[in-house]
Amino acid sequence: MAAGPAHHVVIVGAGFGGLEVARRLARADVRVTVIDRRNHHLFQPLLYQVATASLATSEIAWPIRSLLRRYGNVTTLLGRVVGVDSREKAVLLSDGEAVPFDTLVLATGARHAYFGHDEWERHAPGLKTLEDATTIRRRILGAFEHAERCTNEAERAGFLTFVVIGGGPTGVELAGTIAELAHDTLRRDFRNIDTRQARIVLVEAGPRILPGFRRSLSDYALRALRKLGVEVRLGQAVFECTAEGVRIGAEHLSAKTVIWAAGVAASPAAEWLHAPADRAGRILVAPDLTVPGHPDVFAIGDTAHVGMPDGRQVPGIAPAAKQEGRYVAETITARLKGGNALPPFRYKDAGSLATIGKRAAVVDFGWIRVTGWPAWWLWGFAHIYFLIGLRHRLAVALNWLWIYFTGQRSARLITQERAKDDG
Amino acid sequence: MAAGPAHHVVIVGAGFGGLEVARRLARADVRVTVIDRRNHHLFQPLLYQVATASLATSEIAWPIRSLLRRYGNVTTLLGRVVGVDSREKAVLLSDGEAVPFDTLVLATGARHAYFGHDEWERHAPGLKTLEDATTIRRRILGAFEHAERCTNEAERAGFLTFVVIGGGPTGVELAGTIAELAHDTLRRDFRNIDTRQARIVLVEAGPRILPGFRRSLSDYALRALRKLGVEVRLGQAVFECTAEGVRIGAEHLSAKTVIWAAGVAASPAAEWLHAPADRAGRILVAPDLTVPGHPDVFAIGDTAHVGMPDGRQVPGIAPAAKQEGRYVAETITARLKGGNALPPFRYKDAGSLATIGKRAAVVDFGWIRVTGWPAWWLWGFAHIYFLIGLRHRLAVALNWLWIYFTGQRSARLITQERAKDDG
Repeated sequence: MAAGPAHHVVIVGAGFGGLEVARRLARADVRVTVIDRRNHHLFQPLLYQVATASLATSEIAWPIRSLLRRYGNVTTLLGRVVGVDSREKAVLLSDGEAVPFDTLVLATGARHAYFGHDEWERHAPGLKTLEDATTIRRRILGAFEHAERCTNEAERAGFLTFVVIGGGPTGVELAGTIAELAHDTLRRDFRNIDTRQARIVLVEAGPRILPGFRRSLSDYALRALRKLGVEVRLGQAVFECTAEGVRIGAEHLSAKTVIWAAGVAASPAAEWLHAPADRAGRILVAPDLTVPGHPDVFAIGDTAHVGMPDGRQVPGIAPAAKQEGRYVAETITARLKGGNALPPFRYKDAGSLATIGKRAAVVDFGWIRVTGWPAWWLWGFAHIYFLIGLRHRLAVALNWLWIYFTGQRSARLITQERAKDDG
Repeated sequence: MAAGPAHHVVIVGAGFGGLEVARRLARADVRVTVIDRRNHHLFQPLLYQVATASLATSEIAWPIRSLLRRYGNVTTLLGRVVGVDSREKAVLLSDGEAVPFDTLVLATGARHAYFGHDEWERHAPGLKTLEDATTIRRRILGAFEHAERCTNEAERAGFLTFVVIGGGPTGVELAGTIAELAHDTLRRDFRNIDTRQARIVLVEAGPRILPGFRRSLSDYALRALRKLGVEVRLGQAVFECTAEGVRIGAEHLSAKTVIWAAGVAASPAAEWLHAPADRAGRILVAPDLTVPGHPDVFAIGDTAHVGMPDGRQVPGIAPAAKQEGRYVAETITARLKGGNALPPFRYKDAGSLATIGKRAAVVDFGWIRVTGWPAWWLWGFAHIYFLIGLRHRLAVALNWLWIYFTGQRSARLITQERAKDDG
């Protein structure tokens, strides 16, 4: 290891929160090590577009090393963290190595949760990584291919039925884009099937979609989805997922493609520290985002359950993780300078956005609400603004304008077949 | 199946040759079925750029269906052909289905050949599919990550040694680009290693690299490669590939990353028909590109061994496959019209191109030879011209200009780790 300042900050996870901590510590008198088990940072808000063949994987991901290369005090480590030795103050890696820390930041993110039914995952994959996205893309495009060759009517209907479970932003965005794929993009590509006959079903256990938004926007999104031909089922919970479809109440819905967008669970970070956690595994952090009993360990982003004065909790979205990351970096800097502790973390709501296909979106900035195509353009500009680097912005903008005007999606590739065969 | 003209042409393989046959038959009075086991057509000449993190997979691949959608007489079938029943005149698919044909075109392409050492494949992967490219990309980028964390000097040297076997265009292009990755792109990304210390070795059993080009261009390419820091070893054959490296003569070269660009073998099409084949498995076709004894079956591209009047054989490159495809389509049309047989197929050499990194290339049009950066720009324009569709052209041009001026490569993603773990 290179020589440098004495104080060593270890950040586990290079998502929105972890990266923000590293960047904000660039000029502090600390050594920083960022550990992630992937070599890339992922722009998760656009992951559904990779899953639905609109964007390429490299358009929403960046090598962590190159994002951090200009910060001389930051080292990047590709490794899988399996535990924390809080007495020795060291992070344990899967290959047996121990990385000592003075301050630790846990920003390990979340995976999907199947509410105790992990066996559903193989039938209803979730969407958190680039591999998840290419898996879902392969299933969606493969279903149309199978339907084209299928001679049994009932089986063909199963291949042409797509069920998305969960009516949050990801579920709404997936369902809307699959509907566009079927009803527009693929319309003239097949000879034996009419892709417009495809049935896209969005299942939400609660009383409305986009529950994080206000009622009027939920209602608008519902109308927009139905206009796209999506069958939305509210107040219906899923009781079973199999290779043949899903059971919703007493009804069995025959579907070969089921996508899980219903729940998330935090990484096992809470278990590493035997820290108190909520039902989803998020650490119940103190008001300064430290882990109770571990003043030198912070948890942020989807790893942390952060309460707000009004009793709600900070949502699991990118802007919240970034704000927490910034707060943690400032706290670490203040501590090293020996100053007073900062006031408790306070989340500033910068607004919520969600798209429904390529013509509509809902945007809620609190003081103003926008729907329809102006909201879509607003959504598009906001996301391009938050992408890192000119090249990614140009590439994504080019893709979106192309899809907008031609309806054609370029990333319609079925890959990883060999990996699957080999398995 | 849709009703239509009586004569049914089945094309197996949607590479450069197969697609050309389908397109040229668009206005003929035939039904055409294109069968491929992948859903995409691949622009193989640029595959090495996906392997070396310069391009995204979707930038060099197109869904076959959308390429053929406007030809109403063409049906696309995603399926794996496992045999031909020449008595019943039907193609047999892996799922048991039989697709009857009146005329059959075999354009099934090639895989890499290990000269009887198939066990080398896991240590020295070849480059023919998108999955091959992402596998090689993962290995190259992963080697630098391992080197960064490695504390044993000898082991680190192994991770920083990259061996490319085979000095044809693919080998030269791979070695040159890996050298640029190590010496330029990744230079400032690591803290414990100096990526400029990486050793890139190109091994060629013959007396010179680019043996298909004339001597002066081979010599120029050799100088250009050496200037990029590539260690070129001529006249040295590989005797063994293991997880630890390669044995060249009596010498053992310790290398964790070995890439195979040495030999190709045709698909088993010759075996399906018990047709005469050369050592690489290519069918020894008649002068009209039919398979001897099967006047209704054609073989083209890498599936066929086509002799030329001067005793050489038609090279296994895209322009040759396209010319053969065009010839076959014209022959089928002429036969249906009952006209005279066409004169035997004649290959027109349109020139050869190869790049060495991002500043040099060699171009041989026969009447003129170009080297250096003018050749690089010529190479670039030619390849962008042959890409299909404005969007792909814009995207690839954007990427190349970006790399040219910034040295940064956007597609540096290590993916499919899960698929690997699962296996």
